[in-house]
Amino acid sequence: MLAPFDLIALDADDTLWHNEPKFYATQEQFRALLTGYHTPAWIDERLHETEKRNLAHFGYGVKGFVLSMIETAVELTEGRVSGQEVKQIIDLGRSMLTAPVELIDGVREAVEQLSRDYQLALLTKGDLFDQETKLARSGLGELFSHVEIVSEKNAVTYLAVMKRRGVEPSRFLMVGNSLRSDVLPVLEAGGAAVHVPYPLTWAHEEVPEDALAGKHFARLQHIRELSEWLGTQAASR
Amino acid sequence: MLAPFDLIALDADDTLWHNEPKFYATQEQFRALLTGYHTPAWIDERLHETEKRNLAHFGYGVKGFVLSMIETAVELTEGRVSGQEVKQIIDLGRSMLTAPVELIDGVREAVEQLSRDYQLALLTKGDLFDQETKLARSGLGELFSHVEIVSEKNAVTYLAVMKRRGVEPSRFLMVGNSLRSDVLPVLEAGGAAVHVPYPLTWAHEEVPEDALAGKHFARLQHIRELSEWLGTQAASR
Repeated sequence: MLAPFDLIALDADDTLWHNEPKFYATQEQFRALLTGYHTPAWIDERLHETEKRNLAHFGYGVKGFVLSMIETAVELTEGRVSGQEVKQIIDLGRSMLTAPVELIDGVREAVEQLSRDYQLALLTKGDLFDQETKLARSGLGELFSHVEIVSEKNAVTYLAVMKRRGVEPSRFLMVGNSLRSDVLPVLEAGGAAVHVPYPLTWAHEEVPEDALAGKHFARLQHIRELSEWLGTQAASR
Repeated sequence: MLAPFDLIALDADDTLWHNEPKFYATQEQFRALLTGYHTPAWIDERLHETEKRNLAHFGYGVKGFVLSMIETAVELTEGRVSGQEVKQIIDLGRSMLTAPVELIDGVREAVEQLSRDYQLALLTKGDLFDQETKLARSGLGELFSHVEIVSEKNAVTYLAVMKRRGVEPSRFLMVGNSLRSDVLPVLEAGGAAVHVPYPLTWAHEEVPEDALAGKHFARLQHIRELSEWLGTQAASR
């Protein structure tokens, strides 16, 4: 039986391990810090605006998020935020960076099974240092033949990864929780994609419904269903 | 004539373009901000301590440097640093991240010449996003066949790069300004190294003199001397 793909790339944050809840919990503490100044909804909106504006300078990741929280705190308190409160925000970030990596239930077994039949790559965007240390803490490192940490996931970066690994686009499968980063740009690059949704999605990763019109990709409830799905693909190709 | 190396990797910061002076200038402004509280020497010492402590959580790069400056400011003012001053520190960081990339005099010509005879890799440590955008702004991108941005330069990462590129250690040459990052670990990995000193060195990159005892590597005053040096190596190998 011919394998349907030569390389399967898996996203990491919220595909293999829980990530967005950590940002969410941190943001909750951030909101509590500013609760005397503004409503929670307004704090969230201003923080999201600051993050979006800073993405072009800071890129993705915890450090940029912390800098955006500090900047938002200064702005929303008109400079009255105290040094100790600023330090608390930095400590929130440091806690995120050292927090245990919590695998999504069933992921280890699913990835182990996949790794017996396929070449697997970990393909994640974000902060190089943070993603590397999370992979190390996850204990999944030895299951991947390649690790690719990129600053942005778009069609150009996917094509570069395929070229670097010597894989034809039609033989490349990406699996992840983000329609914006793990599905749409892979399809644009000529690859296949499987969407495994996660309950929480960062506002920045959301895509309008009509962006999905006419797009062909599979959706699975859990990564443990992937092996079986691959079996059906092998049969039909 | 047999080429002496299959792959030449060049460091970026302070090897191809000026970097440390930007940190130095920013630190000068940081010192000025705290001048009413402490002596410049004490401010520098505390900042360096904070940076060292944070490296394990933040890794290298401007964002971690900014967070360390903010943390040091809170500490040295016993929390009295104002929101506006904190914002000024973030703005210093943003300026560093968007500053023009200034090539070291003669680098473009030197790298162009090397690229005619050798496979060149850019091999730099630090923040992925920041290093990628600097390379884009440098205009040197098309001269490199590979770009490797790593979170730390040690013997293990050098061996991984050699393996990934299919290069024997003895056929790998690293060129850079840091004895600690560009010379010693490459020699440990079985490769060759050329040290091209830069006038300013970050305290963290300094190595004690005796660490160099018995180490064999070349030292050139400028990267433009590299082509000629390679010619002598080709003849002697």
